[in-house]
Amino acid sequence: MMQIPKDIAIVGSGLVGSLLAIYLRKLGHKITVFDRRPDIRTVEFSGRSINLAMSNRGWKALREVGIEDIIKKIAIPLDKRAMHIGENPVYYQKYGKEGEAIWSISRGVLNRKMIDLAEEAGVQFRFNEKVWDIKLPQAKLFTGESEKSEWQEYRFDLVFGCDGAFSRIRHKMQRRSRFDYSQDFLDVGYKELTIPPNEDGSHKLDKNSFHIWPRGKFMFIAMPNIDGSFTCTLFLPFEGSVSFESITDKSEARAFFKTHFPDVSGYIENLAMDFFKNPTSALVTMKCYPWTYWDKVALVGDSAHAVVPFYGQGMNAGFEDIYKLYQWIGRYGDDWEAIFRAYQEDRKPNADAIAELSYRNFIEMSSKTADPMFLLQKKIEKRFAERHPDKWIPVYSRVTFSDRPYAEALALGDAQEAIMQKIMKMPDIEEIWDSQQVELEILDALAAQRSNEVSRQP
Amino acid sequence: MMQIPKDIAIVGSGLVGSLLAIYLRKLGHKITVFDRRPDIRTVEFSGRSINLAMSNRGWKALREVGIEDIIKKIAIPLDKRAMHIGENPVYYQKYGKEGEAIWSISRGVLNRKMIDLAEEAGVQFRFNEKVWDIKLPQAKLFTGESEKSEWQEYRFDLVFGCDGAFSRIRHKMQRRSRFDYSQDFLDVGYKELTIPPNEDGSHKLDKNSFHIWPRGKFMFIAMPNIDGSFTCTLFLPFEGSVSFESITDKSEARAFFKTHFPDVSGYIENLAMDFFKNPTSALVTMKCYPWTYWDKVALVGDSAHAVVPFYGQGMNAGFEDIYKLYQWIGRYGDDWEAIFRAYQEDRKPNADAIAELSYRNFIEMSSKTADPMFLLQKKIEKRFAERHPDKWIPVYSRVTFSDRPYAEALALGDAQEAIMQKIMKMPDIEEIWDSQQVELEILDALAAQRSNEVSRQP
Repeated sequence: MMQIPKDIAIVGSGLVGSLLAIYLRKLGHKITVFDRRPDIRTVEFSGRSINLAMSNRGWKALREVGIEDIIKKIAIPLDKRAMHIGENPVYYQKYGKEGEAIWSISRGVLNRKMIDLAEEAGVQFRFNEKVWDIKLPQAKLFTGESEKSEWQEYRFDLVFGCDGAFSRIRHKMQRRSRFDYSQDFLDVGYKELTIPPNEDGSHKLDKNSFHIWPRGKFMFIAMPNIDGSFTCTLFLPFEGSVSFESITDKSEARAFFKTHFPDVSGYIENLAMDFFKNPTSALVTMKCYPWTYWDKVALVGDSAHAVVPFYGQGMNAGFEDIYKLYQWIGRYGDDWEAIFRAYQEDRKPNADAIAELSYRNFIEMSSKTADPMFLLQKKIEKRFAERHPDKWIPVYSRVTFSDRPYAEALALGDAQEAIMQKIMKMPDIEEIWDSQQVELEILDALAAQRSNEVSRQP
Repeated sequence: MMQIPKDIAIVGSGLVGSLLAIYLRKLGHKITVFDRRPDIRTVEFSGRSINLAMSNRGWKALREVGIEDIIKKIAIPLDKRAMHIGENPVYYQKYGKEGEAIWSISRGVLNRKMIDLAEEAGVQFRFNEKVWDIKLPQAKLFTGESEKSEWQEYRFDLVFGCDGAFSRIRHKMQRRSRFDYSQDFLDVGYKELTIPPNEDGSHKLDKNSFHIWPRGKFMFIAMPNIDGSFTCTLFLPFEGSVSFESITDKSEARAFFKTHFPDVSGYIENLAMDFFKNPTSALVTMKCYPWTYWDKVALVGDSAHAVVPFYGQGMNAGFEDIYKLYQWIGRYGDDWEAIFRAYQEDRKPNADAIAELSYRNFIEMSSKTADPMFLLQKKIEKRFAERHPDKWIPVYSRVTFSDRPYAEALALGDAQEAIMQKIMKMPDIEEIWDSQQVELEILDALAAQRSNEVSRQP
């Protein structure tokens, strides 16, 4: 498939910007990527990242342009969660069926590789060039040293804003009338920390696990890198009795880790150092609409829909945007107005759905993990899903290991939750949870939902 | 009450900006008001305004600084709605009890008077001076011809952003981390139109009524001015079969009015002219938080909480902000950090509540007025409120004629709605709606809610 060649600018050389560049080059376009930051291949990576979890949607988008295998070489498959709870030994939860895994990748390592691949495909990168303004109807970009300096003007046929949650391109669209927009921050922030490799280069914890230390109001996670290290993330309230604010020096940081994460206390010296070296970052859910302007400008990835990281789907959703955009190009050829319209109408409800699912996962992890009734509910669901894998697809699997729309996964989750609300009200559910009675009750409720659905059809 | 005098800037010379200036002058401060637009007293007013409905909260704020009586002279009391429905003669709905009214004021006339009063109080106005940037920690303002021109720098002790829904001051706060923000537009826009006075200067429609022509998806309203004219507002979808988009010339505009508003067709020539002279404006709900920065900067009025106009409370809420701010000054003296903290924590839930109430009124007017069950529900509520005025305060009255917090009014409305949901499910409710059975059922439900409330208290 080739299109009438266009002169296209992409603002942002992150993961979404560089993958989109590869896609559009394959379609025959001239591509210039602007980034306000220096070339990530020439600098140390930031220290404010959470490792990425590539899952089905991400891989599918890479496969389409033939780079799945290259990227798999820098990724580590994680087929299970490793739960570090209290004094107990670690216990493991398989993610899915045999062969299903999410893949841990360092954001920096992946981004460098993607830029290499885009350059090989013929994409031109303009690093250290800051875009300050855009004239939307003419797809004109203005760049310069500072907001008030002399600006250079570029005119393109199309501009894609892949410049992240705090997108400059969206910022300009946002000032137009009838542009819906929201940004909502969590009271929990995060900080990147590192567990170094053993001296022989091997991993200090099980390599093929997503390690989690859930602690109610806060949480620590660790994801492996190919160099033997783990990129860890501490999620912690900004303020309060146990919070970033309350940890003011290294000895307090050390005490905090010793108290709450005793099984990583062997690496604490390093963690306590990182704690004060690395910044504390905020977590935001950003929604907006529309995502496009005429046949000139479109937002893709975080600039259109930033989510909190608790479902590991931020990058996957951005890559799926590109994959879907490509499908619409296949359908509408060179009619960019039709392509953009279909793209945003297709993706918006799914972006909203993954935002909601990601936020719910945060609530679940931070406030429900201590609730015995919630844990019992999860146990009942798990048991039922094992017995009836065709009838009860866990929402996590639907999101992570399928390519069905996120909005469907959200609806599926709501339907399952409605059933479980009834089940949890059964008398003596604590005693009978593993009984045939409960199993039949769920089956009945599922059948009732199905017949309702059928009767709703015209 | 006097405070340690401060050098204070207010950005925006609208209604909230000028009233706040009067309040702060009374406390002994030096006040400079910046406005990017020319002095409203020297120019024709914009043609994109909806007349204001001053109600209890607004009057109370004016009374506190002794200007209620002056403003009442330019306002007209409206004690009822005049409903223009179909071919029927107009029918009237009293707003409240004897003596309760909302007051119609032209925004332009009121704003001019408020600026006069502020100037008399010693406030300095700097019109035609555009604020482009603010350094929040230093309360420094930057003004100039354009965003990229040379800027003049001013340093103040405090800055108040009263620059409306698209506030420049908030815009700067919004770019900070952990600033929650949302803007949501309706698919319905509005246009100002005018019904001129009779030749003898009298009003063409009943002068002491708020005139409404509800038409489901769209609506026309008219509010009187002291010069005998009416400022009218047409609310209409932007797109669709009957929409701003679908009316493309004067004859289509004339036909639209003739079809849907036959009893104003005598004035149609004028309306059709205004239709193309005046802009079509959008309606937005804007929420944000926090509203203040240290002891330096605070947002007041629409810049902190813009609501859709369907409850007539936008200005009243802004004036109440000022009244409450003044109460907190009385409490905390010169501790501006404490004042600002208390102000935003006090006002935020109430701003959210009036935003929700205003949005619900839009939904009610645009989609429920055609639903016979909804109209029956309103009839039952009205009947019950007449019989038990102590037990059922209509939410409209609570919002409009009391000074109890908006959040309480919203909660009251939810509690009433929960009761009515049950009532509407009573068998044969269409037949028995006016019976003692229904009355007793509502009384029981109210008693049950009350005893629930009591039992929830510790």
